[in-house]
Amino acid sequence: MAYDGVETPHGKVDRMLGGACTYISLAASYFTRVNIVAVVGEDFEQPDLDLLSSRGIDLTGLEQVPGKTFFWAGVYSEDMNDRTTLRTDLNVFADFQPKLPESYRKQPYLLLGNIQPELQRSVRAQMNGLRLVGGDTMNYWIADHRAALLETIAEWDFLLINDGEARMLSGENNLRRAADKILGMGPSTLVIKRGEYGAILFRRDGHFMAPGYLLQDVFDPTGAGDCFAGGFIGYLAGQGVNPRDGNIPHQDLRRAVIYGSVMGSFCCENFGVDRFRTLTRAEIDARYQEFKDCTDF
Amino acid sequence: MAYDGVETPHGKVDRMLGGACTYISLAASYFTRVNIVAVVGEDFEQPDLDLLSSRGIDLTGLEQVPGKTFFWAGVYSEDMNDRTTLRTDLNVFADFQPKLPESYRKQPYLLLGNIQPELQRSVRAQMNGLRLVGGDTMNYWIADHRAALLETIAEWDFLLINDGEARMLSGENNLRRAADKILGMGPSTLVIKRGEYGAILFRRDGHFMAPGYLLQDVFDPTGAGDCFAGGFIGYLAGQGVNPRDGNIPHQDLRRAVIYGSVMGSFCCENFGVDRFRTLTRAEIDARYQEFKDCTDF
Repeated sequence: MAYDGVETPHGKVDRMLGGACTYISLAASYFTRVNIVAVVGEDFEQPDLDLLSSRGIDLTGLEQVPGKTFFWAGVYSEDMNDRTTLRTDLNVFADFQPKLPESYRKQPYLLLGNIQPELQRSVRAQMNGLRLVGGDTMNYWIADHRAALLETIAEWDFLLINDGEARMLSGENNLRRAADKILGMGPSTLVIKRGEYGAILFRRDGHFMAPGYLLQDVFDPTGAGDCFAGGFIGYLAGQGVNPRDGNIPHQDLRRAVIYGSVMGSFCCENFGVDRFRTLTRAEIDARYQEFKDCTDF
Repeated sequence: MAYDGVETPHGKVDRMLGGACTYISLAASYFTRVNIVAVVGEDFEQPDLDLLSSRGIDLTGLEQVPGKTFFWAGVYSEDMNDRTTLRTDLNVFADFQPKLPESYRKQPYLLLGNIQPELQRSVRAQMNGLRLVGGDTMNYWIADHRAALLETIAEWDFLLINDGEARMLSGENNLRRAADKILGMGPSTLVIKRGEYGAILFRRDGHFMAPGYLLQDVFDPTGAGDCFAGGFIGYLAGQGVNPRDGNIPHQDLRRAVIYGSVMGSFCCENFGVDRFRTLTRAEIDARYQEFKDCTDF
């Protein structure tokens, strides 16, 4: 969980609620009950806790410790396809050792946000009775912590990454070849996110392509990938999927990709988490139907 | 019709059959009978004419005149998303004034390849009894011949362009806004091609998104956009669509976009037109089914 400073062509906010855990949990909360594990500093504000609580998110695993909350600041390019990081202050995140509350350990679904692979692995090791586990990573871990990352994802059912990360992880430029290699690393399901161009779900026996939602205005793309992850795992958890031998029903996985895309698209419609202050499940289902209508032939 | 010199990361060919008319007519020939209007020079070779004839393409409107055939040479970037033109020799194309044979003038469907807008307009003016007309253009005509281009497309039912051209023509960066503006210029149907990311069909009452086919290897993307156009108009002509007040049935338009995507994808599988030497309608229909399977949810 973090505070972010963000500048896009539509405006600038110096400090607002952010962080992968925030976006993932808000997005997932529309589909299932969510328990979070994260760390914040003494500066973390009550209204931000209240927003999460208002969505029914269980904060038992949220540690508040002396020091300041993780802070990130960045500025987006005119077309918002690129961003430059201006500042990253790890603060209390530097010494974070996630410990799961007893009440979390028997949960069946686990989504590991982008963090050191060793920590992702330690969280997974604290769970008993997982039905489905997966997560996200980023270029830094792929390039500089490759061995640890490979050990970590070997234990996952699914991996969610963007196209650049898939190319980097596999060493293949062609996405189909990249996916083949990554599916040999452990996860039986790979979702490659392509930003405004949508997402592709890869399994050994085929793939599924979801278009990117055509937004009229993109205010702030920060958190869109995490909201995709939240919608994806949230939908699967809400359905109560129970994979046997790693086989999640195909139709559920495809729908999870669409719900992920829906949540990512809403995220871009306002700065930071603001869209989630008013978003309703009815709006989500209406947009899901829009995806159906604009892809049917 | 042209000869092309092409270099991609997969190889180099100094001189091979090319040109918009060639690609469009080959692709369309799998769906309907095709009549072409074009010009070539004395150097045009019999085996190239034979390839077109073997696909049942009517060459009555193909002029052969003194001089050399149009020649283009280019080299593609490593990821094949960019290309640099090395040479453009207009040759016999410089003085081309297309004249339609009498036997063509009552045809119901017309696809105008990328050429001077005034010539596209003169071809349209020679037709009697058109049911459906549309075509392609490029950045050069949009930037430097805007008035003539706007007069020309005002008479079209559909326009097929890529995303960069749509942004240039509309002055809008967002594709949804760009499409709104272009649909105010005359065509009731707009297809925006996005290369490997697929295509979007826009109409006043909604849009349809087709993914790009995930090729394992892209050998040579030359002609893929023209093959898209050929598959699109070829399918609509083969169906015998008969729009009233500009209303082409939605399902036919959507399927035409998929067949366009299918033909564009096959084009990339080999150098120049080589894929069309062996391609069968059964392979086309199998790939159409693949599009259905990988987008259904």
